[in-house]
Amino acid sequence: MRTVECGLVILPSAKSTAQDPLLVRVARGEAAERTPVWLMRQAGRYMAEFRKYSDRLGFRERSETAEIAIELSLQPWRAFRPDGVIMFSDILTPLPALGIEFDVVRGKGPVIAAPVRSMEHVRSLRSLDDPASALPFIAPILRTLRSEVGGGAAVLGFVGTPWTLAAYAMEGSADRHCLQTKRIMTAAPAVLHALLAHLADALAVYVCHQIDSGAQVVQLFDSWAHHLSPDQFAEFSLPYAERVIAAVRAVHPSVPLIYHANGGTGKLDLMGGCSADVVGLDWATDISAARAALGPSRPVQGNVDPMLLFAPPDVLREAVVRCCRRAGPRGHILNVGHGVVQGTPEEAVGHFCDLARESATFFDSDEAAAPLPLEASLVSC
Amino acid sequence: MRTVECGLVILPSAKSTAQDPLLVRVARGEAAERTPVWLMRQAGRYMAEFRKYSDRLGFRERSETAEIAIELSLQPWRAFRPDGVIMFSDILTPLPALGIEFDVVRGKGPVIAAPVRSMEHVRSLRSLDDPASALPFIAPILRTLRSEVGGGAAVLGFVGTPWTLAAYAMEGSADRHCLQTKRIMTAAPAVLHALLAHLADALAVYVCHQIDSGAQVVQLFDSWAHHLSPDQFAEFSLPYAERVIAAVRAVHPSVPLIYHANGGTGKLDLMGGCSADVVGLDWATDISAARAALGPSRPVQGNVDPMLLFAPPDVLREAVVRCCRRAGPRGHILNVGHGVVQGTPEEAVGHFCDLARESATFFDSDEAAAPLPLEASLVSC
Repeated sequence: MRTVECGLVILPSAKSTAQDPLLVRVARGEAAERTPVWLMRQAGRYMAEFRKYSDRLGFRERSETAEIAIELSLQPWRAFRPDGVIMFSDILTPLPALGIEFDVVRGKGPVIAAPVRSMEHVRSLRSLDDPASALPFIAPILRTLRSEVGGGAAVLGFVGTPWTLAAYAMEGSADRHCLQTKRIMTAAPAVLHALLAHLADALAVYVCHQIDSGAQVVQLFDSWAHHLSPDQFAEFSLPYAERVIAAVRAVHPSVPLIYHANGGTGKLDLMGGCSADVVGLDWATDISAARAALGPSRPVQGNVDPMLLFAPPDVLREAVVRCCRRAGPRGHILNVGHGVVQGTPEEAVGHFCDLARESATFFDSDEAAAPLPLEASLVSC
Repeated sequence: MRTVECGLVILPSAKSTAQDPLLVRVARGEAAERTPVWLMRQAGRYMAEFRKYSDRLGFRERSETAEIAIELSLQPWRAFRPDGVIMFSDILTPLPALGIEFDVVRGKGPVIAAPVRSMEHVRSLRSLDDPASALPFIAPILRTLRSEVGGGAAVLGFVGTPWTLAAYAMEGSADRHCLQTKRIMTAAPAVLHALLAHLADALAVYVCHQIDSGAQVVQLFDSWAHHLSPDQFAEFSLPYAERVIAAVRAVHPSVPLIYHANGGTGKLDLMGGCSADVVGLDWATDISAARAALGPSRPVQGNVDPMLLFAPPDVLREAVVRCCRRAGPRGHILNVGHGVVQGTPEEAVGHFCDLARESATFFDSDEAAAPLPLEASLVSC
């Protein structure tokens, strides 16, 4: 294991130069000699070297002890020479500094014993005023990685997005339906917004600290973006990721930032080639955009988030009305975008069906009376 | 519980008429008085009535005993009056008739004791020559639903797609990475293709039997489409779903079919509004389509399926070359589209990195030398 350098390392300027690592230049959009490469989770149990540590030490000890985190970060660099070396850490790593303790339980993943689910709890969280003291292992990790890697690769820092960390903090542990967070999102959105704002400000400080310590590129992981419908994504994730990005840009305008959303993509163009009469849509797409992609004459089915069946009735109603209006009055079968989950209130299913029965009133009479093609209704929503 | 009608029921003509249920007419693209509704998994444990059965009877007993399946199908109809009543069943239900036995284990889901992983095994599977004998409960379920529901709603049948059933049959149980199937897909694709063809032919017979028995609409569930990259989807899922659809259409041209792909959608338009320097892409999108959506000047990172690291080296190489060519020689950071998983062969990670190092050779010299904008490279791939 190598010595940790805790002292000052002379870092190259953040400005674009021909001496910057390949990955940094390509991330800035510059022409380059070849395609750079790195792999998310490139330091991990698939490596025998890694298992020598993971078999005997817990996750937090490995990620919060600088010399171990450095060693684990460098293992894939030594073995594979990727163009990016990402610090071994976790998106949850900054949470204890804010007052949100977590542990990583083998076979279960991260567990937060006291999930953040009330405005009082959000207001009691600490800010990240002095990241060097609160997260003292980060600077030595990144400084040492810079000196070890030299100019041979870019050193990457990373954070979770405010949405992803808020959802972790509210759930307490991984839940495939993100139920607790969606309950709060729909029943008390101000609590979620307050947590997101708090996290965004802390994460901006944390990203700047990573850059000050040597990170040449920083990736924002929106690992739980797949839980969000486009509307939810537009309200609860993207603006807060943007808040982090803007705050970091104000201080470090030339350091590239990567935004990775898990579940942010699609293949509607392929589905458009299917000859079935109706295309069923999951709730990860905007139904009007899907109609535009699929062609206005194709009937569609969907696509309300099934977790909205847990929402207050007016929120569910609003979502159903919006979905119907966006889809237009013709060729739409209202449905959830994924199966109803266990624990769904029965009365909400009844309410959902009732809403369809009054759907003719969701459109103005001109619109509802209009014949196919459907383009007019798409444009109007 | 109602009496099961096993005798012949006189069914309305399959041709489009004003007397057809609302959902059927809308599924055909006809103008209608309002938006119809039903919910996937509308019969389920969220209903107390349902739990009276699920608490004491196993899944196969519930779904393969006609009077119980009828009762469970009708519970949401009685409670909520949706416009579609789907038979209570499972996408795996036809598998035992082909020689693939399964059981549903509480807390674990379906388990197939002898997964289908060899050409010999595929060749030993039975065809579905006589669905009325092999699946004797289906006809009484659908006939009785038709008479119980009358004209008040559409009776829906359903099947899994060949891809989704093949993946279940190959995995043996749910695996979040679909590892066994992806191994076969990449190392012995002929075995997977043979299984898909066998399933497609059996499913076409099964769908026709559902229609003959009373189903007015049939949904194809591609529940495991989210496991597939667009290329994989285009090769292993869509053509076999089309084979089922074409065979059914030849016999029942006017019965609407719904195709629902889990994970088939996206929100690239929203991601295009993010101001990060680079957009990271998961492997569910075609990288050239993503670039077209995001704008050619935006650097992107991604997006090879991480399970291809388990593939033979030439298959991995081909995937990497294709990804790089589609992305173009500028503004692309090669990466996997999701984290490297446990068990990944170390040498594959090295191979992946090596490929990036020779990436300049993936483009012809004119293309590689061309300046931004990138449209030229996108068009050429």
